Amino acid sequence: MNILNIIEKKRDKEELSKEEIEYFIKGYTNGEIADYQAAALVMAIYLNGMTKQETTNLTIAMANSGEKLDLSILNEIIVDKHSTGGVGDKVSLILLPLVASLGIPVAKMSGRGLGFTGGTVDKLESIPGYNTGIDINNFVKNVEKIGISMISQTLNLAPADKKIYSLRDSISCVESIPLIASSIMSKKIASGAQKIVLDVTCGSGAFMKSKESAEELAKEMIEIGELANRETVCILTNMDEPLGYAVGNSLEVIEAIDFLKGNMPEDLKEVVLELGAYMIKLAGKGENISENKIKMIENIKNGKGYEKFLQLIENQGGDISYIKDVNKFPKAKYVEKLYSIKSGYIKNMDAKRIGEIVCELGAGRVRKEDGIDNSVGIILNKKVSDNIKEGEELVTIYANSEEKLVKAKKDLLNVIHVTEEKISKQKMILEIVE
Amino acid sequence: MNILNIIEKKRDKEELSKEEIEYFIKGYTNGEIADYQAAALVMAIYLNGMTKQETTNLTIAMANSGEKLDLSILNEIIVDKHSTGGVGDKVSLILLPLVASLGIPVAKMSGRGLGFTGGTVDKLESIPGYNTGIDINNFVKNVEKIGISMISQTLNLAPADKKIYSLRDSISCVESIPLIASSIMSKKIASGAQKIVLDVTCGSGAFMKSKESAEELAKEMIEIGELANRETVCILTNMDEPLGYAVGNSLEVIEAIDFLKGNMPEDLKEVVLELGAYMIKLAGKGENISENKIKMIENIKNGKGYEKFLQLIENQGGDISYIKDVNKFPKAKYVEKLYSIKSGYIKNMDAKRIGEIVCELGAGRVRKEDGIDNSVGIILNKKVSDNIKEGEELVTIYANSEEKLVKAKKDLLNVIHVTEEKISKQKMILEIVE
Repeated sequence: MNILNIIEKKRDKEELSKEEIEYFIKGYTNGEIADYQAAALVMAIYLNGMTKQETTNLTIAMANSGEKLDLSILNEIIVDKHSTGGVGDKVSLILLPLVASLGIPVAKMSGRGLGFTGGTVDKLESIPGYNTGIDINNFVKNVEKIGISMISQTLNLAPADKKIYSLRDSISCVESIPLIASSIMSKKIASGAQKIVLDVTCGSGAFMKSKESAEELAKEMIEIGELANRETVCILTNMDEPLGYAVGNSLEVIEAIDFLKGNMPEDLKEVVLELGAYMIKLAGKGENISENKIKMIENIKNGKGYEKFLQLIENQGGDISYIKDVNKFPKAKYVEKLYSIKSGYIKNMDAKRIGEIVCELGAGRVRKEDGIDNSVGIILNKKVSDNIKEGEELVTIYANSEEKLVKAKKDLLNVIHVTEEKISKQKMILEIVE
Repeated sequence: MNILNIIEKKRDKEELSKEEIEYFIKGYTNGEIADYQAAALVMAIYLNGMTKQETTNLTIAMANSGEKLDLSILNEIIVDKHSTGGVGDKVSLILLPLVASLGIPVAKMSGRGLGFTGGTVDKLESIPGYNTGIDINNFVKNVEKIGISMISQTLNLAPADKKIYSLRDSISCVESIPLIASSIMSKKIASGAQKIVLDVTCGSGAFMKSKESAEELAKEMIEIGELANRETVCILTNMDEPLGYAVGNSLEVIEAIDFLKGNMPEDLKEVVLELGAYMIKLAGKGENISENKIKMIENIKNGKGYEKFLQLIENQGGDISYIKDVNKFPKAKYVEKLYSIKSGYIKNMDAKRIGEIVCELGAGRVRKEDGIDNSVGIILNKKVSDNIKEGEELVTIYANSEEKLVKAKKDLLNVIHVTEEKISKQKMILEIVE
């Protein structure tokens, strides 16, 4: 077997065997196969596609390319939750303590944000003391002890995926369904997920811009899940405007705390309940989706979800006095409101552009090595379709530099459009693919 | 402009502009564009093709990527001759002195052999003293003085082509018509050719295996020639069996000398005359192809072709006593004949396999840095369609190691097939594309 024949086969639209895919992944991970050879193969895959079997074999080979987490020691079905990324996405912060409060074990490794999308780990780290970098032994012990742990990726999970992902980025081969699907699923499999609920976001603030492409990606991942023996459900959710009202690290943590205390923005509530209901179902703790949602609402009302959140934060070294009194979170130096210059209805608020504006305020990273500013961000006062009056508050900006504040104000006015026509509310759950 | 957008355009089947192609060639040559980015673009070109205009722009950008030879100082039309490669191809050694003897200036830079095909420079260097490495000033002076000079590529011609060619080799992207056509034409343009006669070989010992693909390549190069203002004619020639009888460096030089003395193998004669007749036509020294061929035959008969060859060799430091007495060429240690084990007709003699066998004897290079052995090779006693009797001589092997001799004998018996059915003679000139 050699890489030239493998490239040639894919170039000529032939199906690669399991052994050929494993040979490529092994050789590329250990450096025997050069970047330029991988680049040629990746472009051929982009243009000629992959069969479901090839995509599954690629997924498994990448999952096996580094360390793997074995959660079977927990003797319970571990359901993982993953989102394909969005703006204002604090779902994990709310959803995971909530399902844990219903007795479903949560062992979650999250990523950091890059570009316009935020990362759960960055948000958790805005809570003083919270340690996302604990080792795997303690991670597993935490799940055994309190039923939940949320950490960053401390293991060297799927290094082949990391290498291929960064290569794709530098050769214009990002938007390929088999490559995106295998990238996501390989990390999930390597991190020990037995069952997977995927939030496939869709719209301007998501990777998939159209419902059709999101659907295609979802179907591909479902099939990989089937072939790899990992039951998978995909929930297609709307990401045309930011989720909830807050965008920015500690601002989103505060919104999550508020949610767990019962103050639930409608769009965020729909997404949290839908994802959670399927997590409960996959965990074997409730077949009926509507009933599962009711159980979750109950644990919001009786405070058990919030209690689990407190327990999680405290157990990993976080200072819960911040959770109990969110005013303790460091405030940005400049807090300024932006007002509408006309009356009407909010027509749209491009989630990607808002993500970029918040990133430029300092909440996100342009490059991997950048530091982030936890206190900056925005809080929307309105959502798409909401009625607004001239002079009424549109958004509050939290900034630590006057220059950035001025730029964000200007940019936000260009992004939030008010129209005189009535706008219908956006549907949040677009489709369930299972 | 940036390379990501350029890759994206070609990936999406869009046409690249002249500026984009120049940006890529410049950036790749100076190292600003990485190998893996070039690899992705080359694979996208392989799979999505290029328009004639794109291929021409690529050709010119590669021709302009390094040094260029300006032959306008000679005040004559310089017609270049190039072959897409073959086995036993000593055409340049014969043809170029022959047309020079008719008053047509020849300024020829040739390559070295790699793999199963030989190179004219290697063959010339088997003549003791012959200097292929003279500088450009002396090269031009030689042409002015005696009407011919043949050297190796001393200039840094089309370095972008060199880089892309070696990349293509390592990413399974060799067999691409626009990439092959632009590679050949860029070197011709950079080496100062004003008009070009191309020997597009076709068959088992050639790059193009079928007549259809050779035709396609020929048409592509004709169009590049037109768009780049370099009149081009392509002669499609058969390369299913070796050309002539000798394969190996000094053995081929001896066959060339023999030819110029009037002992002309039929297949070699057809090719030499056809190519030469078109060189004379393009040089503006004779419109009629048949008449041009007659002029060449005359200069064989009257010895002027042979005299010009002697003059060329002497003028570049070669010891002409070897030409005058070819027995002076060093002989291989082992000279052994192989005999037919049955009577019948020669069915086929795979040119590529014979090229490989001779390369393994030491006549060619497996890697660029390998040395070569001038004295080894084979001399066929028969050609395809020839009648042969059991026990009659098939081929003579010239080897310098017993081990290699034994292997070559075994291999040759597997390559030369004798059948009882009558076989018709192969056509040498398959088509003229102009």
